[in-house]
Amino acid sequence: MFTLDRKLNDGTRIGKLTTPHGEIRTPFFMPVGTVGSVKSVAPSELVDLGAQIVLSNTYHLYLRPGEQLIKKLGGLHQFMRWNKPILTDSGGYQVFSLGDRGKDKNSLVKISPEGVEFKSHLDGSKHFFTPEKVIDIQLDLGVDILMPLDVCPSGKATLDEVKRATDLTVIWAKRAKEHFELQTKNYTPENKPLLHGIVQGGLDLDLRRQCAAALIDLDFDGYSIGGLAVDFETRDMWKVVELMGQILPENKQRYLMGVGTPDDIQKAVTLGIDMFDCVLPTRLARHASVYVKCQEEKKFTLVNLLNARYREDGGVIDPGCGCPTCSGGFSKAYLSHLLRSSEILGLRLATLHNLYQYLNLMRQIQDGR
Amino acid sequence: MFTLDRKLNDGTRIGKLTTPHGEIRTPFFMPVGTVGSVKSVAPSELVDLGAQIVLSNTYHLYLRPGEQLIKKLGGLHQFMRWNKPILTDSGGYQVFSLGDRGKDKNSLVKISPEGVEFKSHLDGSKHFFTPEKVIDIQLDLGVDILMPLDVCPSGKATLDEVKRATDLTVIWAKRAKEHFELQTKNYTPENKPLLHGIVQGGLDLDLRRQCAAALIDLDFDGYSIGGLAVDFETRDMWKVVELMGQILPENKQRYLMGVGTPDDIQKAVTLGIDMFDCVLPTRLARHASVYVKCQEEKKFTLVNLLNARYREDGGVIDPGCGCPTCSGGFSKAYLSHLLRSSEILGLRLATLHNLYQYLNLMRQIQDGR
Repeated sequence: MFTLDRKLNDGTRIGKLTTPHGEIRTPFFMPVGTVGSVKSVAPSELVDLGAQIVLSNTYHLYLRPGEQLIKKLGGLHQFMRWNKPILTDSGGYQVFSLGDRGKDKNSLVKISPEGVEFKSHLDGSKHFFTPEKVIDIQLDLGVDILMPLDVCPSGKATLDEVKRATDLTVIWAKRAKEHFELQTKNYTPENKPLLHGIVQGGLDLDLRRQCAAALIDLDFDGYSIGGLAVDFETRDMWKVVELMGQILPENKQRYLMGVGTPDDIQKAVTLGIDMFDCVLPTRLARHASVYVKCQEEKKFTLVNLLNARYREDGGVIDPGCGCPTCSGGFSKAYLSHLLRSSEILGLRLATLHNLYQYLNLMRQIQDGR
Repeated sequence: MFTLDRKLNDGTRIGKLTTPHGEIRTPFFMPVGTVGSVKSVAPSELVDLGAQIVLSNTYHLYLRPGEQLIKKLGGLHQFMRWNKPILTDSGGYQVFSLGDRGKDKNSLVKISPEGVEFKSHLDGSKHFFTPEKVIDIQLDLGVDILMPLDVCPSGKATLDEVKRATDLTVIWAKRAKEHFELQTKNYTPENKPLLHGIVQGGLDLDLRRQCAAALIDLDFDGYSIGGLAVDFETRDMWKVVELMGQILPENKQRYLMGVGTPDDIQKAVTLGIDMFDCVLPTRLARHASVYVKCQEEKKFTLVNLLNARYREDGGVIDPGCGCPTCSGGFSKAYLSHLLRSSEILGLRLATLHNLYQYLNLMRQIQDGR
């Protein structure tokens, strides 16, 4: 359950989200642990960094190691030794990414009204996802916040294609919601996870408005804004985000899926968004890029530690940063050396720094600073 | 300085080694951090595991990032954020490994009485190591225990080749010692690092005896036993180790370089060896192999976590183990999943377990258990 505690003049919504595994201060950022591990980072480190929740992926965990195995071993929290909340993406985005989101004739993906057939990226085996099955998988994983199966159109899709994807997303959302309520009817209010509706509609504001209205009618626990993290220009995205901030219910949490840079997140927060996830902090770190904050302007710049100028730089990435890497005194010269030498510790230390930057930014926003 | 506190009935020597960066309980094991990082492990984790000292490599650090840079940035301890003792191998083994230890006609390595010319494995650039230069590099790194440049013959070398390598090792050891004393004449007793002599001689006991005698005459701070970690059958090695335990000075620490399995180490300890290093715990972990101790017999078995039987195994590697992986409750099924998915956390958790097994074994030996 979402509680909006206060709204700042700039539009920022400050509140909390209660889940079976505890309360989360909002707005918040979710580190991405696609297959049940935030790349290179241990659960205890995530706690130390201030992560309140992690995101994992239904599609990946379904394929390997399988949700039945995870259920048998006590659920995803027990499996990955993380006892704070977990959100799972439905897998819709991953499934449609396999086939350029359904446009390719030789696509690995076949959409029908019933669901979507796809081939595993691991072994080519065929699988079929329905809205109901995707709910079942997530309930078996035992996560706190579930996403329904949606149809995520490509940025290159025609308006007609986007319309059909959006219509099917709404139909599937209804089936997902009904199945979810049936399957969780014996859950206690404390143990019942949260189900979101995912608003699609590409960059078309009318479609987005219609989709949101239809999903709001279905009364989801919260609302996600899908399809914006992929191949749209950032400037196009903001009209949709702004609209969503205006029309989605004030008393429900809003999740801008897969977005974005620290600057994107700061802007989206002022448009009324409460939840974020993004692979950038972990992925960029693995490519030696780290965020540095300009204290005055709350702007972030990216620095590549493989740049020659850092080879002899005995300073830390950011002297004002409280992350284990900077407060531990690991110099840019050392990080540069480790990354050049393909040493795992290098990308670990860079990852810790980037995640801290995101999580610390969210703490400052939560504190109204 | 080495202090032998007591000798157990089984031959185990229990004592302490004092270095510029503190005292080390003996016998001890050194995790290997070749390029200035124990692969995937942070310094704070090494401390938590009970590591008293780490080993790094002169050859690798000389080539990248360069000992001058490390010196400029405050020395290797400051560079890698590790304030306990560091031992550096001389690089002799690495240099000779490049050219099948000098046997190959197209070898990257050319030995002369003056020193050894070699080509960098990184960029093919030519370099020349002399015994004096190798001392200088290690003094610039600022490490606690130095190894002199030695000639490490291949396991396939003829007796004559081994004899020539051993003779040159002794000549170089003398030059290294003289240069070391000259360069450290202004060091305080507390700050002066320790220099070892490295005994070579292959599997020939007479050569080993002669080499040891010549090095003992030079009065090193401690003695290393080289050339046994590579391609000799274990059963051949033990005659040499036994001889060394008998003839090396009782009041100096003995270091069996590059050896070995936990069982090897337990045996060598009873033959009077005080110091060990080995890549096995870290390297095997990266290949999903973890050590399990049979409590009764103090024997260790290796378990490969990629074995199908562990895919659904909700138990930890070893319920009696105090490592972060086992005590943290990470199941074999989860480790198996991470390792199959090439997730860095998998090899990290396996590495922590293996290092703990080694370091805990040494603690038990130090405690006389």
